[in-house]
Amino acid sequence: MNHILILGGGKSSTFLIDYLADTCESKNRFLTLADLDAKAAAAKLQNRSNTAAVSLDIQDEPSRKKLISEADVVISMLPAFMHPIVARDCLELGKHFFSASYESDEMKSMKENIEQKGLFFLNECGLDPGIDHMSAMKVIHEAHDKGEKITSFKSFCGGLLSPQSESNPWKYKFTWNPRNVVLAGQGTSRYIEKGDLKFVPYHQLFKRLETVNFPGLGDFDGYPNRDSLSYRKVYGLQEIPTMLRGTLRRAGYCKAWNVFIQLGMTDDSFVMEMPENSTLRQLMNAFLPYHKTLSVEEKLAELIPELDFPTFEKIQWLGFFSDRKLPKTKGSPAQILQAILETDWALEPEDRDMIVMQHQFEIEGVSGKKQILSSLVCLGKDATHTAMAQTVGLPLAIAVDLFLDGKIKLTGLHVPVVREIYLPILSHLETLGIKFVEKEIINPARPSQ
Amino acid sequence: MNHILILGGGKSSTFLIDYLADTCESKNRFLTLADLDAKAAAAKLQNRSNTAAVSLDIQDEPSRKKLISEADVVISMLPAFMHPIVARDCLELGKHFFSASYESDEMKSMKENIEQKGLFFLNECGLDPGIDHMSAMKVIHEAHDKGEKITSFKSFCGGLLSPQSESNPWKYKFTWNPRNVVLAGQGTSRYIEKGDLKFVPYHQLFKRLETVNFPGLGDFDGYPNRDSLSYRKVYGLQEIPTMLRGTLRRAGYCKAWNVFIQLGMTDDSFVMEMPENSTLRQLMNAFLPYHKTLSVEEKLAELIPELDFPTFEKIQWLGFFSDRKLPKTKGSPAQILQAILETDWALEPEDRDMIVMQHQFEIEGVSGKKQILSSLVCLGKDATHTAMAQTVGLPLAIAVDLFLDGKIKLTGLHVPVVREIYLPILSHLETLGIKFVEKEIINPARPSQ
Repeated sequence: MNHILILGGGKSSTFLIDYLADTCESKNRFLTLADLDAKAAAAKLQNRSNTAAVSLDIQDEPSRKKLISEADVVISMLPAFMHPIVARDCLELGKHFFSASYESDEMKSMKENIEQKGLFFLNECGLDPGIDHMSAMKVIHEAHDKGEKITSFKSFCGGLLSPQSESNPWKYKFTWNPRNVVLAGQGTSRYIEKGDLKFVPYHQLFKRLETVNFPGLGDFDGYPNRDSLSYRKVYGLQEIPTMLRGTLRRAGYCKAWNVFIQLGMTDDSFVMEMPENSTLRQLMNAFLPYHKTLSVEEKLAELIPELDFPTFEKIQWLGFFSDRKLPKTKGSPAQILQAILETDWALEPEDRDMIVMQHQFEIEGVSGKKQILSSLVCLGKDATHTAMAQTVGLPLAIAVDLFLDGKIKLTGLHVPVVREIYLPILSHLETLGIKFVEKEIINPARPSQ
Repeated sequence: MNHILILGGGKSSTFLIDYLADTCESKNRFLTLADLDAKAAAAKLQNRSNTAAVSLDIQDEPSRKKLISEADVVISMLPAFMHPIVARDCLELGKHFFSASYESDEMKSMKENIEQKGLFFLNECGLDPGIDHMSAMKVIHEAHDKGEKITSFKSFCGGLLSPQSESNPWKYKFTWNPRNVVLAGQGTSRYIEKGDLKFVPYHQLFKRLETVNFPGLGDFDGYPNRDSLSYRKVYGLQEIPTMLRGTLRRAGYCKAWNVFIQLGMTDDSFVMEMPENSTLRQLMNAFLPYHKTLSVEEKLAELIPELDFPTFEKIQWLGFFSDRKLPKTKGSPAQILQAILETDWALEPEDRDMIVMQHQFEIEGVSGKKQILSSLVCLGKDATHTAMAQTVGLPLAIAVDLFLDGKIKLTGLHVPVVREIYLPILSHLETLGIKFVEKEIINPARPSQ
């Protein structure tokens, strides 16, 4: 009997747990779900046969190691910094390891030992990273098999709201970690376009937009995301002239968010302290120059010449021109802004999230040029069964299932960019409704700029 | 016989050494100058009586402590991170300590011990910090003595070029550490204006300018410098509605420098690698969006709407629109930019530097409002006898001289904001030509905004 250990039973584990727990009896497996909160974990398992919930403080090394030693495969759904610790335990105790997080340098340093011990470690097998790799590699491998040359690859992904829940001017609410949303894009983003390296500082990032359209859903803003250059190697596209990975927001969001960036209100590098009982208006004024007669609105319009009405409306809707009290007066600007948004951008119980992903390829084939647009739209079912939980958890669950069924026979350290891993996972995801729609345009009249 | 030890005989020590060495014989003192390069140190001492040059690697603790143990007062002209190490030695060995650098938290942590041992530790006794404190405190104390209220204090300082050496469109060359010039202003600057706290992110800083005029020299740009708020306490002005410390550049410099900031070319947080033989034009293009037909110049004009001809000319003069090869293709953007500027902004042997400082006070007295403008202009004599070396070294030299003459009788940890320290130093500086010119405007018609 194979023994699966899942570490962490949070929101994004819902589908992962269900998928694996449902077949424990029929496939003669046992599933242990370990979480700080054993009661919540038990609730997720719903008394299914061959499953057990246990309480675990992940920092408690003896308990952690004992649990791992009893398992065959370990799935880490913990915060990213914990993965290397769990992976090291797995390496020591000879257990296979799965995660949906980035393959860290620390993980990479274990590569040889993993191979020597004949273990299988799979990272980046969630949504982004995960489904993005798999669906892109499918197109890339197919093109290469036909002797075609990929001249441009842009890939965009966003965790957003289902259209019926876009009930504020931002068309945005927090469907995942608010802090990550407030700090999104900090640092310098890098990509390559028509052979030219491009570097975008944070304060230019939310202006460097591409419009990305999803049929039936309309337009989204895509901005370049971190280091696209490093993916050239991952995808075997070292010589590609254009490679860009981007993040999606609803059209108009980026222009308004850029106001906060321009003012310095997303800064997380220092602690400010506003007087007690300060208002949102006063907070915004602290990031505007002093003027004898001009109002906050007028100074903002002067500082941000591109401030149009839809942008103004979004800022206004949050209360920045009103006497609404700050929920927090001391903290980094980013922390104070987050506290404000956590009220305004909170998900209502009836809200549903949405995952959108689009790959845009330009390919030179034997018979001419073509574009391939490959788009995924995944809608959440409810506040628990979110699109995020589906798209993060299911690829991982399927990978574990295939591995235990002997359908993935690899050993070593992997991300899902090889056919043996991604083909069966993508095909299972399709049966669960997570399916890319491909559109091919032969000899496009107007290639993308 | 009192024994003075100077650690570090670099460029900014020239006047300090001369001032103290000249009187060693008459005042029955001995001066040791310790530097990694004992020959250069000896050359600075010019065989004056009662002086000796020694070679010292400051990291060599036994040698360092031996030298310190033989001294009565120690002057640290070392890089800032070394001051606490030397100060700790002085505390241990019971020696007085002097520096021209900021009083660090580590230094503050020694406060009680310094007092207990009856020692005198003086920091921030150079130019900025140093002369700025002293000259400001003189005005502040005088106003407070008269029962006047200071409602606004803005203070600006710049290390620039003497007008006859302003021989390029930037009117700037490196008269001190090029790296500090390239990174100047990074972080978030803070000040208070008419009672409102103001926070300025780096990418807004070089737009938040005030024009500062020096009679006979013309206009300068002043931008807010780091944390002006903390100076309210230092200067005993906790309740002041307006307090701003700024850095000066020649008028027009900031607008052009801001182009580099906006593009991300002063970023020091990541390493980029341009292809071999890349040009300055290609480097600039890497920070601009791709466009099918627009040139680098056109894209720049589109990205920076306020790009006027004087700004364009400055960028062009550096070669950013030309095929000039990059002096360095790998490094942080800031490092690459610095390498370019080090050629173009190098001081010629005949170049002279200039220090400008201006305090702007608004004061409410019994008989109405007044403004006080207190301005200092100090010109360098030649490439060795720079204005920077004069204004950094002389206050420190005078402080040590006064202390050894028994004219400063304080103990404990100090910065020169008390009369007993600043009055005699300012009066000695005047005799050496370092003199503030004060202008008082009674009932100003147009108070500053």
